[in-house]
Amino acid sequence: MTETTKNSKKAGLPPGALVHIGKQKAQKIKISVIDYDKDTYTEKICETIEECFEYRDTEKITWINIDGLHQTEIIQQLGEHYELHPLLLEDVLNTGHRPKIEEFDNYIFLTLKMLGLNKKADSIVNEQISFILGKTWVISFQEQQGDVFEVLRERIRESKGNIRFKGSDYLLYRLIDTVVDNYFYVTEFISESTEKLEGKVLLSNDRKNLLEIQHLKNELRNLRKAVAPLRDAVTNLHKDVTMIQEETKRYLRDVYEHIIHVNDSIDSQRDILAGIMDLYQTGVSNKMNQVMQLLTIISTIFIPLTFIAGIYGMNFENIPELHYKNAYFIVWGVMVFISILMLFYFKRKRWL
Amino acid sequence: MTETTKNSKKAGLPPGALVHIGKQKAQKIKISVIDYDKDTYTEKICETIEECFEYRDTEKITWINIDGLHQTEIIQQLGEHYELHPLLLEDVLNTGHRPKIEEFDNYIFLTLKMLGLNKKADSIVNEQISFILGKTWVISFQEQQGDVFEVLRERIRESKGNIRFKGSDYLLYRLIDTVVDNYFYVTEFISESTEKLEGKVLLSNDRKNLLEIQHLKNELRNLRKAVAPLRDAVTNLHKDVTMIQEETKRYLRDVYEHIIHVNDSIDSQRDILAGIMDLYQTGVSNKMNQVMQLLTIISTIFIPLTFIAGIYGMNFENIPELHYKNAYFIVWGVMVFISILMLFYFKRKRWL
Amino acid sequence: MTETTKNSKKAGLPPGALVHIGKQKAQKIKISVIDYDKDTYTEKICETIEECFEYRDTEKITWINIDGLHQTEIIQQLGEHYELHPLLLEDVLNTGHRPKIEEFDNYIFLTLKMLGLNKKADSIVNEQISFILGKTWVISFQEQQGDVFEVLRERIRESKGNIRFKGSDYLLYRLIDTVVDNYFYVTEFISESTEKLEGKVLLSNDRKNLLEIQHLKNELRNLRKAVAPLRDAVTNLHKDVTMIQEETKRYLRDVYEHIIHVNDSIDSQRDILAGIMDLYQTGVSNKMNQVMQLLTIISTIFIPLTFIAGIYGMNFENIPELHYKNAYFIVWGVMVFISILMLFYFKRKRWL
Amino acid sequence: MTETTKNSKKAGLPPGALVHIGKQKAQKIKISVIDYDKDTYTEKICETIEECFEYRDTEKITWINIDGLHQTEIIQQLGEHYELHPLLLEDVLNTGHRPKIEEFDNYIFLTLKMLGLNKKADSIVNEQISFILGKTWVISFQEQQGDVFEVLRERIRESKGNIRFKGSDYLLYRLIDTVVDNYFYVTEFISESTEKLEGKVLLSNDRKNLLEIQHLKNELRNLRKAVAPLRDAVTNLHKDVTMIQEETKRYLRDVYEHIIHVNDSIDSQRDILAGIMDLYQTGVSNKMNQVMQLLTIISTIFIPLTFIAGIYGMNFENIPELHYKNAYFIVWGVMVFISILMLFYFKRKRWL
Amino acid sequence: MTETTKNSKKAGLPPGALVHIGKQKAQKIKISVIDYDKDTYTEKICETIEECFEYRDTEKITWINIDGLHQTEIIQQLGEHYELHPLLLEDVLNTGHRPKIEEFDNYIFLTLKMLGLNKKADSIVNEQISFILGKTWVISFQEQQGDVFEVLRERIRESKGNIRFKGSDYLLYRLIDTVVDNYFYVTEFISESTEKLEGKVLLSNDRKNLLEIQHLKNELRNLRKAVAPLRDAVTNLHKDVTMIQEETKRYLRDVYEHIIHVNDSIDSQRDILAGIMDLYQTGVSNKMNQVMQLLTIISTIFIPLTFIAGIYGMNFENIPELHYKNAYFIVWGVMVFISILMLFYFKRKRWL
Repeated sequence: MTETTKNSKKAGLPPGALVHIGKQKAQKIKISVIDYDKDTYTEKICETIEECFEYRDTEKITWINIDGLHQTEIIQQLGEHYELHPLLLEDVLNTGHRPKIEEFDNYIFLTLKMLGLNKKADSIVNEQISFILGKTWVISFQEQQGDVFEVLRERIRESKGNIRFKGSDYLLYRLIDTVVDNYFYVTEFISESTEKLEGKVLLSNDRKNLLEIQHLKNELRNLRKAVAPLRDAVTNLHKDVTMIQEETKRYLRDVYEHIIHVNDSIDSQRDILAGIMDLYQTGVSNKMNQVMQLLTIISTIFIPLTFIAGIYGMNFENIPELHYKNAYFIVWGVMVFISILMLFYFKRKRWL
Repeated sequence: MTETTKNSKKAGLPPGALVHIGKQKAQKIKISVIDYDKDTYTEKICETIEECFEYRDTEKITWINIDGLHQTEIIQQLGEHYELHPLLLEDVLNTGHRPKIEEFDNYIFLTLKMLGLNKKADSIVNEQISFILGKTWVISFQEQQGDVFEVLRERIRESKGNIRFKGSDYLLYRLIDTVVDNYFYVTEFISESTEKLEGKVLLSNDRKNLLEIQHLKNELRNLRKAVAPLRDAVTNLHKDVTMIQEETKRYLRDVYEHIIHVNDSIDSQRDILAGIMDLYQTGVSNKMNQVMQLLTIISTIFIPLTFIAGIYGMNFENIPELHYKNAYFIVWGVMVFISILMLFYFKRKRWL
Repeated sequence: MTETTKNSKKAGLPPGALVHIGKQKAQKIKISVIDYDKDTYTEKICETIEECFEYRDTEKITWINIDGLHQTEIIQQLGEHYELHPLLLEDVLNTGHRPKIEEFDNYIFLTLKMLGLNKKADSIVNEQISFILGKTWVISFQEQQGDVFEVLRERIRESKGNIRFKGSDYLLYRLIDTVVDNYFYVTEFISESTEKLEGKVLLSNDRKNLLEIQHLKNELRNLRKAVAPLRDAVTNLHKDVTMIQEETKRYLRDVYEHIIHVNDSIDSQRDILAGIMDLYQTGVSNKMNQVMQLLTIISTIFIPLTFIAGIYGMNFENIPELHYKNAYFIVWGVMVFISILMLFYFKRKRWL
Repeated sequence: MTETTKNSKKAGLPPGALVHIGKQKAQKIKISVIDYDKDTYTEKICETIEECFEYRDTEKITWINIDGLHQTEIIQQLGEHYELHPLLLEDVLNTGHRPKIEEFDNYIFLTLKMLGLNKKADSIVNEQISFILGKTWVISFQEQQGDVFEVLRERIRESKGNIRFKGSDYLLYRLIDTVVDNYFYVTEFISESTEKLEGKVLLSNDRKNLLEIQHLKNELRNLRKAVAPLRDAVTNLHKDVTMIQEETKRYLRDVYEHIIHVNDSIDSQRDILAGIMDLYQTGVSNKMNQVMQLLTIISTIFIPLTFIAGIYGMNFENIPELHYKNAYFIVWGVMVFISILMLFYFKRKRWL
Repeated sequence: MTETTKNSKKAGLPPGALVHIGKQKAQKIKISVIDYDKDTYTEKICETIEECFEYRDTEKITWINIDGLHQTEIIQQLGEHYELHPLLLEDVLNTGHRPKIEEFDNYIFLTLKMLGLNKKADSIVNEQISFILGKTWVISFQEQQGDVFEVLRERIRESKGNIRFKGSDYLLYRLIDTVVDNYFYVTEFISESTEKLEGKVLLSNDRKNLLEIQHLKNELRNLRKAVAPLRDAVTNLHKDVTMIQEETKRYLRDVYEHIIHVNDSIDSQRDILAGIMDLYQTGVSNKMNQVMQLLTIISTIFIPLTFIAGIYGMNFENIPELHYKNAYFIVWGVMVFISILMLFYFKRKRWL
């Protein structure tokens, strides 16, 4: 989850200049339309963008989903037909944008992040998703094919629940809710990683653990950047916006609480990581202490003994002790006595 | 007090889909009803949920308590009869929810945490409890049987105090008050643990102490998560909500102050723990210092002496000192003198 | 200044249940009354609480002071006669309550902390004091006999200044002002302790200093808990409360500024203590550095020399140097040369 | 990007005293004018300031750009003709001013920082740029020649986009937008530097890395000082100011979001730098650990062996072992055995 | 800049009791008056306070400046004649007061700090200065003779600029502005000290540097205490106060920005000092590392060699190597070989 966006690409260009800021994709853009009301249901893949223009003013609820942002001319055509503001389209294409909501005269624009794990499941990937809510339609823009909405599509198709009985604002709510529910996967992944990491740090002071702490910290920071602004955006949505019906607002309040929950989890994890960092650092200090203690024990015992041996290795002509019969054994005795004394001392100091 | 809740279980499901998020229990749900007014008092255990439907529209105050959340169909039936919002029921079942209050047209919903110590009394357990306050009834939902309300039930039965003379809002206040008063047990437990821990840290740098610091930190963080949102919830309750009578609001203000007090205690304990962490870390440093000082004293005294002994262990043919009669004793003298000098030096440096 | 209050004592009891939370005192409660107006002055000690009931509705200003909170029935009687709210009496008795103000219909309730030094003048003691301001009377509750108001009583007796010409709100202001002015003694005590401590820390790394830092930190935290909520309470008092006359409000603003000042001092002292903590920790590191340097200097000089001595202590049959006439002296020369080289090196590294 | 401004130069002078606070330039001030409407376009370099006075009250949009602030009399003449407030001119000349907006009766004043990299591209340079927006004109003041507006001038000349169709407020927006877009270059530079630095810190504990961390921290602090106040300034601009048309305000909201984005990046980088600092510090500790381990391993193995050798170097007459035939080889065996034991021990402790 | 104020001096005294809290001065109080309008100008030194009473109700602008606060009876007389509130006079005399503004019916009271360097220019001194703004007069109180207003007096005398054409509120602005402009000297002094200190810390780990860091931190904290409250005070002044004319308010906004600037500088310096502290601490660690490395290199090379020498110093009868002819030289060879190996190892580890 690194920030590869190059916003500086756009310096000097006029506002609304449609430049796709993000990784280039080779695939064709895929446009799919779902059109429904209480009684009818149509689903199709459009070959050209013009095919989805007809849904603009019908009574039925229409969900136009666009996968891929690199063919800016298609986005532009869509924008012209649906009378979207150029700055809005610019924001759709700038995949480094922070989550936000903006209210226009006839529609609401909302952009947020879809979060997931990469295939090796060791880091978090994000994808920008933008929604435009009109009176009877929702347009969604995704960076890539493949999304989290399959369950929702199924429910619309089979008219499970009451989604077919409600307006486009309820559809938008369900879309946002699905995205936010997926955030829990990510926070649970982080939380499990943190727990595993704590175990590792307790076992060893390997520097790899430190790098992993930093890595998780960065993931959390990026998560926070994706989730925190969303909170304010959804607050606006369930409070002020006139296009959302009263009944739907209570549901949005529920989404809001989920976002708060995710946010709280992120903050907790940061705190826990700080604790693990402390563990790591005191681990390093403790190790050093052990090393030093061993060195000190060995040195303190043997250095005086070696000194004694040195004394009787001197070549003076007149060293009386050298001629005593049991001197050698007495010296050994003294040495053993000193050692035992030292060991007692270390025992009492709890170094052993 | 770990967060085992799996919110991701629900991703993709519609709102109001009743999934019990929490540990599964094998026991049957227990439904108990207390129905009273100034003059009468009834108490019973309902076999089926239908038995408690009759209390909805009576004049008497009814307290329906439900222990266990795993039989979602019972909750659903209750919800239908009492016309509860699906999102509310969802929140009742999601035991990882943060404390909150929500006002509906005909009732108020409040969810919070009941805190206690586990049986071995070495960690904190929490249980979610939710209240719905209607005009003449209060419904409470608990995760498990066994609660803190026995004293309160006794008072209602024997009509002690004025509880039988007041409305359902006063009953709700008494329920919340009882829950919050129990928080003090928990903060006092933490505070005692912290004090004990400080003593231990002063005695030794055992790594177990560090882990205990981290453990208490985590407990405090979880406590904070349970208590801090409650503050805002109760503020709303005693300020804005129309279903609460003026007189009761003053009582709720009292509860509010208790929550503030608990919150303050939690913050103090965090601070104190940070201080203990400092103690621990400087303890480690001080230990290292002591170890190094011992090593240095021993080395600094004996290394020069050993060198002198080494000198006179050399085998040069012509070392004049070797032949002096008292050379050996003079060398001893020099060595003792050097040692005393060193000891003086260390004394002055306060290393001894 | 430890928090011995056991709030959990009260769990499950109804609101307004009068339980004295605090240390039990054996003495009898002492009730003293001062009653005055411009022209008259009466002072008496009441044997029974009933004696002070008569002052409730007179025109004169009455100050009823109650020393001791353990005879709850007396407090209760007073409460009934003066129509005080049960929750208010509960707060009077709960000596662990944080400072607060609460406005009732006919009176204002204010509780705060009286701070002082204990007799050995090495730690801070606090005592809760509560005031109830009625139209023509002020009731004050203290935990123990002995207070800071003697100067004030003298001024009323001798009608110094204008206190006898003003209402009960001015009396309340004078009482609060006296309490707050005494806070300065405490902050000055802390500030002196901090200064002394800094001196000690500069001299030695004794672990006692660390404990003293922690002790002062705890004192400051407790002080903060006593003073910070008072700020908000007094703000309410000089802003919103209708029972306080305009003229008196300006005086309360002055008290407010004193509280801010005390608060600022506390924050400064915290900051300074953090600095002293840094001093302590770098002191420990510096000491270690010195120890290590000495060890290194001694080792680095003598280890190579000992090696040389060892070489010529070997017993090989054919070591040509052994037979040179001045070899011994040359070796000495080499050793002295090496030592001087090393000393130069350490000099340049500024280790000596 | 050091703060060379000497605000103290002005102490005691009256307000509006025009003193150029900044580096003195030798070049002449360069005044260039661009005058345009839908159909016409004029561009010229003025020799004297009087030449640009005529544009004040024309219908066409005029952009007067002044490069160089050291000839205060020119600024003063301009100020008099355009009826600019003396304090405004003072702010134009004080190049250490923080970004701000100020609304006057007939014009708006805005000052901000233009950021760039110096030629060696290793540090950030900033230049103050001020704008005055009148009804039909914009005056811009820069410290030096050379700016980031060339692309914009080109677009006006060739009437690309809709800039020639809009008012002076839109011109101001485009100028601010261009400045802000260039901020991204700077944050990307910082972000790359940080990444490189992290690599270096992982490789070595060179103190140069520490200095680079500090350097980047200072750059970030200065950046923050340049960008953070701008956020509030632009908020005012797109919210309250009456001279800006509704349509342009939406564009300014877009600029506002860019500034937020830059701010977020700066905060992220600060966080990342703190992480790198942690890496550095634990790197130092780890290195110390390695050094100590090596010392301990070598000492712990050889000190006991040397002691044994010392024993049998003693000159006692009666040491029985000396006369055993294979004693020497047995001693070697014992020594090797001890070494292997030690190595095993270190292996198990994972020191090897 | 230590806080010598003893606020506890006043405990128990009534409000408005005039006690001079500050250092006692022996000099007489000096009262000087400047009286002017567009056309006339008078300046005199008053012997008694009564001489300046006549200026109270004249049309001309009068600036009464009082140097010295220890003769409280003079202050009191002045206060009575000008009908100043007793609490205001108390604040004038309490030189430890934090900067504040207070609006009274007929005048505004403002107290702030004048900052400067002491004569040895190594620490910051502050002096309290208070202003009272009446309709046609300004009274200023200073602790000592000597101030920063000489330039301003000169401008009034010679009617430079427009000060003689404006009211007393403009005079007050000029006085505040002069005081605030002098703050820049102080922040620049701190900033230079910080820079010098950084250089010193890079060169050595002398503990004096640490003390200097602490000293600068304390200076900054005191500065902050002098400047931060002033910000709010001046905000009130240029926003709400009715005695200040609209035109003057824009000037006060300018002063406000200067104060913000000073505040920002203080915060930056704090940050930079924290960075220097980091430098110092890692400097200590690095030094320790170097010391340890030297010790380890020397020990690791010589301890094994000494062991070898020890081996051949043993007195076993049967050590075959002793009798080989070139054994001595071979052993030397082995030793040199080991040394070179070690040196290579240390080279690769970059310890050399």
